[in-house]
Amino acid sequence: MNYCSHCGEKVTLIVPPGDDRERYVCSSCETIHYSNPRIIAGCLPIHEDKVLLCRRAIEPRYDKWTLPAGFMENGETTEEGALREAWEEARAKIDVEGLYTLFSLPQINQVHLFYRGHLSALDFEPGPESLEVRLFTEEEIPWDDLAFMVVGKTLKHYFADRQSGHFPMRSEDLVHPKGRDWKPP
Amino acid sequence: MNYCSHCGEKVTLIVPPGDDRERYVCSSCETIHYSNPRIIAGCLPIHEDKVLLCRRAIEPRYDKWTLPAGFMENGETTEEGALREAWEEARAKIDVEGLYTLFSLPQINQVHLFYRGHLSALDFEPGPESLEVRLFTEEEIPWDDLAFMVVGKTLKHYFADRQSGHFPMRSEDLVHPKGRDWKPP
Ligand SMILES: [Zn+2]
Ligand SMILES: [Zn+2]
Repeated sequence: MNYCSHCGEKVTLIVPPGDDRERYVCSSCETIHYSNPRIIAGCLPIHEDKVLLCRRAIEPRYDKWTLPAGFMENGETTEEGALREAWEEARAKIDVEGLYTLFSLPQINQVHLFYRGHLSALDFEPGPESLEVRLFTEEEIPWDDLAFMVVGKTLKHYFADRQSGHFPMRSEDLVHPKGRDWKPP
Repeated sequence: MNYCSHCGEKVTLIVPPGDDRERYVCSSCETIHYSNPRIIAGCLPIHEDKVLLCRRAIEPRYDKWTLPAGFMENGETTEEGALREAWEEARAKIDVEGLYTLFSLPQINQVHLFYRGHLSALDFEPGPESLEVRLFTEEEIPWDDLAFMVVGKTLKHYFADRQSGHFPMRSEDLVHPKGRDWKPP
């Protein structure tokens, strides 16, 4: 950030009065510009003993397999964001059964949420951001060609929980040793 | 948003090529400026048969009672954000027992998360954003003077779940009929 999005003057990185972190503050209108983590909402689409994955047509991780997921937009709920992504990336419609996994990735300022649900129809097909969409049994999952660690972890939880038929909501942090600002006192 | 935070030139609100929503796009450097929902992370601090509430020293909802909560910051996990807020608003330290409630508020582009946990000490006291911090039994909760609907809902879930001793993670949408952009197909 170089300029104030409100008035167009230069911003400086300072700790505002009463705050304890650096923020971009406008040198002219004094607006404080906050930056906050973003939410990635996605689905774990299930059909019988299979799950749906998409092969990515975009960077990052072009050609790798992923669960449909993307940045949550203003004006929607987390679940609507997840359903929208399933539609956009796989033309898939899902009957949601519940929130399943939540991951914090503090080093990249992201929170990922995945909803578990069954495909309500089998007429899925690649959307513009996918090269291919298909169903995989547990044995067929391309573990070495998954796009993101949160996808692998969500799939592993699912196949493990499927044994018992209980799918408790799972919360996990994926933390690099670097890039951390604050620890609980 | 009026100006590009990257180059300082004017932005215009248009639907970028390949997108389906209006974004602020720079007329000079062509940067697309996305705006996304923000996360509010908070705690439900418990001691014996009581819960901790803070009386707000700031707007909005000055003088009303709330659970400690606030905007999640870059560089932290959701749980760390919740613990930080408990410390900042109530000088309270919490042993977290799990994620308890998640609320989407699409009309104001917010997602609220509350962690359930026990106070690890009783030396809490008001931080700079609180007028008063105290413990309440269920009978003492000032239901008519709570600051936010998500606080009341989290407390009601807790007192109901306490009967059984089971505290399943609860996900809920607080949706106004207006202000919605997108519905699942
Ligand atoms: Zn300014
Ligand atoms: Zn620009």
